[in-house]
Amino acid sequence: MLVQTYKDMLGAKSVIRDLAGAAVERGKEIGYENVFDYSLGNPSVPVPDEFNRSIIRMIGEMDSQSLHGYSPNPGIPEVRDIVAANLKRRFGIPYTREHIFMTSAAASALAHAFRLVTEPGDEIITFAPFFPEYRPYVNLTGAVLKVVKPDTETFQINFDEFEKMISDKTMAILINSPNNPSGIVYSEETVKRLSDVLRAAQKEYSHPIYIISDEPYREIVFDGKEAPCISKYYDNTIMCYSYSKSLSIPGERIGYMAVNPAAEGADLMVSMAVQISRGIGHNCPSSIIQRAVAENIDLTSDLSIYETNMNLIYDKLVELGFTVVRPGGTFYIFPKALEDDAIAFSKKALKYDLVLVPGDSFGAPGFFRMAYCIDTEKVKRSLPVLERFVKEEYGK
Amino acid sequence: MLVQTYKDMLGAKSVIRDLAGAAVERGKEIGYENVFDYSLGNPSVPVPDEFNRSIIRMIGEMDSQSLHGYSPNPGIPEVRDIVAANLKRRFGIPYTREHIFMTSAAASALAHAFRLVTEPGDEIITFAPFFPEYRPYVNLTGAVLKVVKPDTETFQINFDEFEKMISDKTMAILINSPNNPSGIVYSEETVKRLSDVLRAAQKEYSHPIYIISDEPYREIVFDGKEAPCISKYYDNTIMCYSYSKSLSIPGERIGYMAVNPAAEGADLMVSMAVQISRGIGHNCPSSIIQRAVAENIDLTSDLSIYETNMNLIYDKLVELGFTVVRPGGTFYIFPKALEDDAIAFSKKALKYDLVLVPGDSFGAPGFFRMAYCIDTEKVKRSLPVLERFVKEEYGK
Repeated sequence: MLVQTYKDMLGAKSVIRDLAGAAVERGKEIGYENVFDYSLGNPSVPVPDEFNRSIIRMIGEMDSQSLHGYSPNPGIPEVRDIVAANLKRRFGIPYTREHIFMTSAAASALAHAFRLVTEPGDEIITFAPFFPEYRPYVNLTGAVLKVVKPDTETFQINFDEFEKMISDKTMAILINSPNNPSGIVYSEETVKRLSDVLRAAQKEYSHPIYIISDEPYREIVFDGKEAPCISKYYDNTIMCYSYSKSLSIPGERIGYMAVNPAAEGADLMVSMAVQISRGIGHNCPSSIIQRAVAENIDLTSDLSIYETNMNLIYDKLVELGFTVVRPGGTFYIFPKALEDDAIAFSKKALKYDLVLVPGDSFGAPGFFRMAYCIDTEKVKRSLPVLERFVKEEYGK
Repeated sequence: MLVQTYKDMLGAKSVIRDLAGAAVERGKEIGYENVFDYSLGNPSVPVPDEFNRSIIRMIGEMDSQSLHGYSPNPGIPEVRDIVAANLKRRFGIPYTREHIFMTSAAASALAHAFRLVTEPGDEIITFAPFFPEYRPYVNLTGAVLKVVKPDTETFQINFDEFEKMISDKTMAILINSPNNPSGIVYSEETVKRLSDVLRAAQKEYSHPIYIISDEPYREIVFDGKEAPCISKYYDNTIMCYSYSKSLSIPGERIGYMAVNPAAEGADLMVSMAVQISRGIGHNCPSSIIQRAVAENIDLTSDLSIYETNMNLIYDKLVELGFTVVRPGGTFYIFPKALEDDAIAFSKKALKYDLVLVPGDSFGAPGFFRMAYCIDTEKVKRSLPVLERFVKEEYGK
């Protein structure tokens, strides 16, 4: 019989998808260039030419079986070596091939990480605002996702709430810095405090508590800064990475899980991930794509447009009187709506062809997300419209 | 804590992997060209040039976001259209886009299919000899894999055993024709009888029983024949396909699940598969690979070498007095060993640099598998060695 769990999920509405759909429909009427669609986190800058050239070169030079043949389950050994060496060089952590497990982007890395360290009934804690997919990702493993309410002043961690939530059932903490949807980057102070709290909790409950660090936005950090590398502060860290954003290749489904060599069980985790793959039908990402990212390990797309867009939008929001935390990275910003009901706010904005996503599904009602991975020219055209919307609807 | 289920799996030995490892080691000593390695089902013929040319052309012509951007969860709509039209044309079944769900090859299609129709505790029946990975694939979903003993005369279905095994808990039947490891193709008679038995069981137990039809070898059928298309005989069929063998691209991880439009719940199943993906971290196969298979939907690699190899090996085995069912397809053959213990038989063969896989893990002790996806020249060189092995060890 068709399984009820999945049948029941079909009814659920996704506000983001509905809005994106509305934007496309409206685009058919007035031209999509006239819809200020801030709904989707789809990278707008092109992949570096070098990436495509690598693919063409490999097709010309490699024999079919080497290029398109089976990759070993944890990924192509040379690719894992290159990823490990890159992480070691950047973060000073002694990763080797044995700690790297190539995955079909971050979703797949997370699916393995959750299953490595939680059994059904165990708890994973995450912090609002958070990527809404975390809920089905975790709950469908049988583990339970617990959400700490946001610190809406800073979107750093609300430690008071967090410490109350930790219990013997807590097996992992799921974090995402730089953060979707807030755009903030956890400060070194936050990461240190988080690590201290967890080390104390590990002692109290006599079992490891792992940080599962979802880092697809790691390369998109503003003001010339770098995001603190979680693994440097906390041994029991499982890093989940995706090249979707850094190389603008979300459709190619490529990323990895990197186990901190100092983590408890680090020597077993990649082999265990191979076993997990058998159960969930994962068998490596595409070989040619694995090789192409490895050949361009130090490259990213030109990500500077996101900072340009952020500054334009942030300045305008401040000018218009919005309460908003300045993003430290990503291509998202997460201001407070001008009325308590962010869904009503977003619906009004839609009349101005501004597509803004209410924060409710991110665990932060009253806020809204703008994904500014769109052309700067369009961002510029949207600002007077934003101003008109605010003035006409809210008299500001 | 690291999850015990996966930790426990680490100890398990894979005879196939051990043998493949031994073959590689021996290859280092005497040159791999002198090891007659019949252990692995890794396609030896190249991908058609057209496939690679499609990739190069798309890189030249398409913009980055269209080529490398997010594919919708069930796959790229045009790709699904092309797959559906191809299946409709070939098999006369009215598939449309709504019945096609693109996957990371057959393993991923199976992972979705199992979860669509079974809850933990439900039973899936399969028939020995069978692909050993079916066991972890099914058991890790929480469902239970029941195995019907082989009909060693024909390797068609042992219906007496099968009918005894069906119960109210039976939610799906997992079949694989053309079959790994036996190489046999289910006859029309077998498929008709299987369908009749299942229709009766559906009535008796008042719930649907789905056939999950794993068809990666569908295009490798000998003597100018075609394998009977299961969906034509039984409505509740979920077809799981992979391009790994037909296009020799196992590393690119591409295939699909095709739901028979007449199946109970056919209109829901692809949407439900999207929900399943969220739980298991699947998010479409690579976009560029999806497009490349769609552009070459009617092509296969030159698969004729497998038939050539089969005939050479089959004739020699018969000449040497082996009991063996002539394969109707695939690149496997599954003869009876010359002693009861096929593991001992394989170990003796190894002394002659013949790598043969004992049938125990396929659910058919006493038999052995040869995967003849290797150069015909090497097959020819191996035959006198096989003869010498048989004469010296078994005095035949």
